[in-house]
Amino acid sequence: MINATELEILLVEDNPADCELTIRALRRRNLANRVTVAMDGAQALDFLFGRGDYEGRSPDTHPRLILLDLKLPKVDGLEVLRAIKADEQMRSIPVVVLTSSREERDIVESYRLGVNSYIVKPVDFDKFMEAVTEVGLYWLLLNEPPR
Amino acid sequence: MINATELEILLVEDNPADCELTIRALRRRNLANRVTVAMDGAQALDFLFGRGDYEGRSPDTHPRLILLDLKLPKVDGLEVLRAIKADEQMRSIPVVVLTSSREERDIVESYRLGVNSYIVKPVDFDKFMEAVTEVGLYWLLLNEPPR
Repeated sequence: MINATELEILLVEDNPADCELTIRALRRRNLANRVTVAMDGAQALDFLFGRGDYEGRSPDTHPRLILLDLKLPKVDGLEVLRAIKADEQMRSIPVVVLTSSREERDIVESYRLGVNSYIVKPVDFDKFMEAVTEVGLYWLLLNEPPR
Repeated sequence: MINATELEILLVEDNPADCELTIRALRRRNLANRVTVAMDGAQALDFLFGRGDYEGRSPDTHPRLILLDLKLPKVDGLEVLRAIKADEQMRSIPVVVLTSSREERDIVESYRLGVNSYIVKPVDFDKFMEAVTEVGLYWLLLNEPPR
């Protein structure tokens, strides 16, 4: 049985390089001991709702934080966000969009759907690492999680 | 006419000491050059929606961030949060609850209503200053604001 407190971050990211950097940045501050990666939106939803490959996983076991890329295969990031925030139980999970998109359409729609925070990935390596670290520290150590 | 970019933080806080400390912490990092204080929930809503004493202020001018205490005179913090997140235009404004309450009821209800983040005020002076600074840096410098 999965212990709810053991699952900390769901990282939804299809770019292997960004994925590796994100985990590396979190690991530097000991924030990445519990990360689950979903490579597309469908996998993220299957994981959260305990469907498909995750049949049997309880949807009551919430990650502490979801880091969500927007441009994703199969199911788009905004659709994943919509599904999470439309669900009475899931909507309390903090969702931080972590994307290269500065498009107004993406920003407006993310906030409209109830995203907790929207972070644009810095292009510069050091700034990227720093941004992810700040995100991790803020949401895992400072923010009071939903029960 | 108010320039939208000039208004950065709406601080909703009835405790003068906490109010002063919060502004002092923000000022240390040059994050407090534009702070409006509302001492109760009614004043906060009047300000946001351009009513009462703020008749004539355009509700389209959004603060970049709302720091919201929960235990407030006249209109409770949760009611303020509900009104903001129920409004199509206002709901995009990042709202961070900054409270001494660790009560499950407050946490659960805040997330249910769509709070962006929930921060418990540290009792220790230095930790309080540090937490407010981190909140300011995260939401004003790292987070991409709604348009």
